[in-house]
Amino acid sequence: MPEFDLIERIRQRAGARDDVVLGIGDDAAVLCVPAGRQLVVAMDTLNAGVHFPHDTAAADIGWKALAVNLSDLAAMGAEPAWCTLSLSLAQADDAWVDGFLDGFLTVAHAHRVSLVGGDTTRGPLSISVTVHGFVDPGRALRRDAALAGDDVWVSGTLGDAAAALRQWHGGGVRDAFLRGRLDRPTPRVALGQALASVAHACIDISDGLLADLAHVCRGSGVGAQVSVDELPLAPALRAAFDGDARRTLQAAGGDDYELCFTAAPDLRGEVERAGLDAATPVTRIGRIVEGEGVQTATADGQAWHAEHAGYQHFA
Amino acid sequence: MPEFDLIERIRQRAGARDDVVLGIGDDAAVLCVPAGRQLVVAMDTLNAGVHFPHDTAAADIGWKALAVNLSDLAAMGAEPAWCTLSLSLAQADDAWVDGFLDGFLTVAHAHRVSLVGGDTTRGPLSISVTVHGFVDPGRALRRDAALAGDDVWVSGTLGDAAAALRQWHGGGVRDAFLRGRLDRPTPRVALGQALASVAHACIDISDGLLADLAHVCRGSGVGAQVSVDELPLAPALRAAFDGDARRTLQAAGGDDYELCFTAAPDLRGEVERAGLDAATPVTRIGRIVEGEGVQTATADGQAWHAEHAGYQHFA
Repeated sequence: MPEFDLIERIRQRAGARDDVVLGIGDDAAVLCVPAGRQLVVAMDTLNAGVHFPHDTAAADIGWKALAVNLSDLAAMGAEPAWCTLSLSLAQADDAWVDGFLDGFLTVAHAHRVSLVGGDTTRGPLSISVTVHGFVDPGRALRRDAALAGDDVWVSGTLGDAAAALRQWHGGGVRDAFLRGRLDRPTPRVALGQALASVAHACIDISDGLLADLAHVCRGSGVGAQVSVDELPLAPALRAAFDGDARRTLQAAGGDDYELCFTAAPDLRGEVERAGLDAATPVTRIGRIVEGEGVQTATADGQAWHAEHAGYQHFA
Repeated sequence: MPEFDLIERIRQRAGARDDVVLGIGDDAAVLCVPAGRQLVVAMDTLNAGVHFPHDTAAADIGWKALAVNLSDLAAMGAEPAWCTLSLSLAQADDAWVDGFLDGFLTVAHAHRVSLVGGDTTRGPLSISVTVHGFVDPGRALRRDAALAGDDVWVSGTLGDAAAALRQWHGGGVRDAFLRGRLDRPTPRVALGQALASVAHACIDISDGLLADLAHVCRGSGVGAQVSVDELPLAPALRAAFDGDARRTLQAAGGDDYELCFTAAPDLRGEVERAGLDAATPVTRIGRIVEGEGVQTATADGQAWHAEHAGYQHFA
């Protein structure tokens, strides 16, 4: 399949929005940003064997490549609009590309995102995506806006994806729910937008709750206290892991793509309403304090430490 | 070097523009598009061993990664503004990253482009860049706007980069000028903007003149006639290659990152003035005709064919 056929194959399925003046097929896309709104841009790459196991289905790779990018827009409280895709393939394969697009475009259509450009190249399997969205001026949810006294919240459940990866490495029982959480993360786009006028700071959890909350604390010049036994827990994770192994997966596992955010305690009702409106569970897990660093404790008040630090590339 | 140190290293050197509300360091960048202008977005990836020889210097890779993207904006007649960078490295290496940034940021500063985000990941050496720029509504130079009767023009000289690659494969004499044209292409940004109100269709030459002009013809529903002996020729290429080998490098070699554009014959003076204003040579090489396909002829009127088709990924 020559490159031009591949691009045409993608173009025919890319969808359209009224604000796309010129989409796939020219040197660049031409787009209209709504008057009075700011542009929000995020870019993330997935490499085979690093960000997903080599045995991952093409549709799951496509899903995840866009979902992790939309998760970044969600963490800013932004409304998604467009994406570009750069796809490096060792060899072109009709069935693989169609499967990849099935997953990618399912996520795109669910969030009304148009694929407007990018490129296809030869190389080791790698997918780079850039996403574009909008926020009202001054409304973006930043990492540096947490205030001492804020509650700390997270969406969804934590540790499921990391648990799936551990099961995959272990070669034993593999739970389908957990694997689905690893392969098909849910970007919390509606929740992020609902929080834009409620929350102070927000980040999406990709490196693990403690590592990502530490980014918020550093950026905001504050500390945090987290109750590790309050972290939201999926039944499948409860069944598969126990004790400190489970706590570590939840607190430091990574690949959750849930939102961690802070809000004033007198807005708890508004936060819970945002969760209901977005059909996304939200759980209060701690609070922001003066000082620095993230302290974790168990339900009985004992200080607790994860078995290992959050995932770092190049570490 | 952990990922966060690497990002901080990049952030400190990324520069700033007034229209960047939030740059590197959050989940996404927040940006202001000027009122009344359209957003232009292009994305291109370079993979080691595919888009550059493995022995390419880090600074040259950095230069080329941004230059080829700006070339896409140039081909739209757009004014560059921002870029995001996704850098996949097998291992972090201070000296390599600093060298890469030297080249990348030299191009960025020359064109007043701010690096506003992206990511760093572990994986085979690969660089994805997304560039953003602006055009006035309706002024973007498109591939589908060539008209029968137009002149066909190109900027700069053709075949130099392909000649360098041939010398590199051959292992014999290697000309420094030609290699510089391969490693450090010049994005014709000023020329593209100067042509925005003069030219009809425009494309940047990455796959080879004939292949890229064929895109313009297909998009516009026209044909083209090109005089292969009129193609602009650098002295170094004249000295290194002769006859059909040279003609093939010029007409089909690729990696030129020159602009190929069409304009009405009564605007030849304006095209030449745009070239002078942008300090970029422009050469008239043929014309757009009714019909389809690109026909090439030598100076004595003989039909001519390249020795091989333009470069295709996945071919």
